[in-house]
Amino acid sequence: NRSRSLRIVWLLEELNIPYEIKNYIRGADGLAPKELLDVHPLGKSPVISDGDRVIAESGVIVDYLIKKYGNGKFLPTEENYLDNEYWNHFSEGTLMSAVVMKVIFTKIPAQVPFFIRPLANMICSGFDAGYVKPNVDRSVAFSEDTLKKRGDGWIAGGDKDGNPTAADFMMVFPLQAGVGLGVVPEDSAIKAYIARATGRDAYKRAVERGGV
Amino acid sequence: NRSRSLRIVWLLEELNIPYEIKNYIRGADGLAPKELLDVHPLGKSPVISDGDRVIAESGVIVDYLIKKYGNGKFLPTEENYLDNEYWNHFSEGTLMSAVVMKVIFTKIPAQVPFFIRPLANMICSGFDAGYVKPNVDRSVAFSEDTLKKRGDGWIAGGDKDGNPTAADFMMVFPLQAGVGLGVVPEDSAIKAYIARATGRDAYKRAVERGGV
Repeated sequence: NRSRSLRIVWLLEELNIPYEIKNYIRGADGLAPKELLDVHPLGKSPVISDGDRVIAESGVIVDYLIKKYGNGKFLPTEENYLDNEYWNHFSEGTLMSAVVMKVIFTKIPAQVPFFIRPLANMICSGFDAGYVKPNVDRSVAFSEDTLKKRGDGWIAGGDKDGNPTAADFMMVFPLQAGVGLGVVPEDSAIKAYIARATGRDAYKRAVERGGV
Repeated sequence: NRSRSLRIVWLLEELNIPYEIKNYIRGADGLAPKELLDVHPLGKSPVISDGDRVIAESGVIVDYLIKKYGNGKFLPTEENYLDNEYWNHFSEGTLMSAVVMKVIFTKIPAQVPFFIRPLANMICSGFDAGYVKPNVDRSVAFSEDTLKKRGDGWIAGGDKDGNPTAADFMMVFPLQAGVGLGVVPEDSAIKAYIARATGRDAYKRAVERGGV
């Protein structure tokens, strides 16, 4: 629950291969339960098991599944190869880190006792304005500019038949989180892109099956 | 300055190819200056220019340089392929995010006016204990366990001749940051690993040339 796993389910639906979802419920501390540590020593979700192989890190899982089960679909063209790598890494390494930091600095004031809340608000909003917000804004603006140039296409240019690539399976989720945080403009290429992705039949099936 | 760039310089030295370093000094806000935005729209460092190509995201730069200039050196064996991908993504997506969060929660109390510092300390250390520390500790413990199993080897098993791979060029830096934060045990496989990497001639040359 509350994980970054839906994008993996989305890809599995696009690949049209059989799979089974196991749900793990976070503890009161927000961390994964002990049972998930038995699957992978880092105890983070998503993690997949394929035969004897256990694979973690969303960007690796997405690449692995596309290469192994895609029959060439969802692979970037040679021209789009580096862009596909870039947005895959950017998704977790830059955008998601920035988004998580923003969520945390928004959440902290709500979690402290009410009599120190104004002070917590002051501290957090100062840090947000000076450091977190500029990072989030730059990341969102760069995504927006890129998507504008792509028109109706995918963020790294798509595969040879106009399908999404790993970059898209990775990028839709943190951009949705950005929308949730109110940092994405209403009439934006990002929102059109999210609508394009989430409007796909495979995405809709993923949401239905996607677990808790 | 204060960037994640040294690992790229280290790799360039290992590859023994000519390169030029351009230094960019962060503004008072800790963010990259406008001139870096002219190189790459995200304005983050490291970023490399190779001919007409501008490439960002450390994990992508490292892969690109090894593939283009390594003549097969520093490439993982087939058996180590997935591990190499894993640690490359883990480095920025998981470990570095956790480390940066830990740094921030340590720094905030020092940056607020002294009369609210005890309160800021209380808020930050509560959040650190409940969320940040467990994440850092798990990431460090998993790195430690893996390196212990590798003995004198590299984190993803190395290339066919026992040289480091992309995973190592990525992982040494955040582990050093972990040492700086005091979350790495004294007599650990991590410390031996860092010593092994930083003891290489190419690493020493990188430190000499590595800029501000």
